[in-house]
Amino acid sequence: MSAKVRLYVDHPLGAGQPVPLTREQAHYLFGVMRLAQGDLVALFNGRDGEWQAQVAEAGKRGGSLVCETQSAGQAVPPDVWLLFAPIKKARTDFIVEKAVEMGARRIVPVQTDFTNSERIRQDRLQAHAVEAAEQCGGTFVPEVADLHRLDRLLADWPEGRQLMFCDEASAAGGLDGAPQGPWAILVGPEGGFSQAERDRLRALPFARTVSLGPRILRADTAAVAALTLWQTTLGDWT
Amino acid sequence: MSAKVRLYVDHPLGAGQPVPLTREQAHYLFGVMRLAQGDLVALFNGRDGEWQAQVAEAGKRGGSLVCETQSAGQAVPPDVWLLFAPIKKARTDFIVEKAVEMGARRIVPVQTDFTNSERIRQDRLQAHAVEAAEQCGGTFVPEVADLHRLDRLLADWPEGRQLMFCDEASAAGGLDGAPQGPWAILVGPEGGFSQAERDRLRALPFARTVSLGPRILRADTAAVAALTLWQTTLGDWT
Repeated sequence: MSAKVRLYVDHPLGAGQPVPLTREQAHYLFGVMRLAQGDLVALFNGRDGEWQAQVAEAGKRGGSLVCETQSAGQAVPPDVWLLFAPIKKARTDFIVEKAVEMGARRIVPVQTDFTNSERIRQDRLQAHAVEAAEQCGGTFVPEVADLHRLDRLLADWPEGRQLMFCDEASAAGGLDGAPQGPWAILVGPEGGFSQAERDRLRALPFARTVSLGPRILRADTAAVAALTLWQTTLGDWT
Repeated sequence: MSAKVRLYVDHPLGAGQPVPLTREQAHYLFGVMRLAQGDLVALFNGRDGEWQAQVAEAGKRGGSLVCETQSAGQAVPPDVWLLFAPIKKARTDFIVEKAVEMGARRIVPVQTDFTNSERIRQDRLQAHAVEAAEQCGGTFVPEVADLHRLDRLLADWPEGRQLMFCDEASAAGGLDGAPQGPWAILVGPEGGFSQAERDRLRALPFARTVSLGPRILRADTAAVAALTLWQTTLGDWT
């Protein structure tokens, strides 16, 4: 019998390891999902793979599990970041969810010239990334960074990281012949990039302009399409 | 000045052509969007490209436009169908929206062994495809077919059409060396395909099993990823 519930915990996992539950986790497992002592839960913490754990104590306000066997090793996606401009709440949540499923290592909301929102709820987006990993069976949870201004991010760009700039207004090509190594993907905001941003991005020595086809894509669609292109060319879809 | 509103109409478009409006269209243009006589609207009908049309008559229950100049030629996406198993309403709507953006020629909901829903609202999904085309700037609206049983669809498969079978449980490859021509893409339902379906699909002479990477994707994510793979290899993303 294998676990029907997957749960992310921030606690070391290993054979025989007891894992205490927070009040919220206990409510979810015993109140909502109606698990009882002896039932199995699949646990992951983003570091130690996935473990089958048994309910040792089930209470209304707490409880504990004990890890039994490891059911999956720790997976770490290739080193690609997704940079995107936050849009309406529901679409932003979708982008985070899609980035987790598509195997982004890190998610970076960026403020561009045409971005409407000036702040994001980083904690909410991070929780959304955790939930997406719980649901898609992954063992890795990408970090969701705080909102960065695009111009500052480009000025402080990390040494050795390539940038795939998805420019809808361009007739650029794909990633053929692009170098292996750390990458970041930048997908545009609703309304596109400003001309100043486009000129700057195209002139960067570490940036490669890539086309996402002849149709206009929403930001969440563009994120999945761009990650597909990258994963099939340079990532772990072989 | 160009039009701020795009509208799909089921009426021939051409220079000087008058276009009568339905009550709903008049309500949208004049009640919701507050357009008045002389304002411009971008029209498309899926056949005659996009036209800039001027409001000739604006009434509460009707009105008319007159086409002036063609602002885009008619685009027709490559001949690829998207076959998918309907899921929860919001996700099904997303799949239709994504298929339009990604340039599917036809959208076919299929009932598989593990599909929960036994019926769909074809008219609602078709209206959703129209709305997606209005919003993404496209001039083509794919037909959304009625729900087909997968087994019958495969038994009556159209001569000469290839099938890209996206099997999450497989370590199959991509589309390298796949033949040009008409294709269909089949993405799996939540819960995957049954073993009988998988065996049958893998044995079909016109089917090619393709992997969508090492992570489990939701159906809407899989639809975008599969269409990206197809468009970059065999379609119009060159």
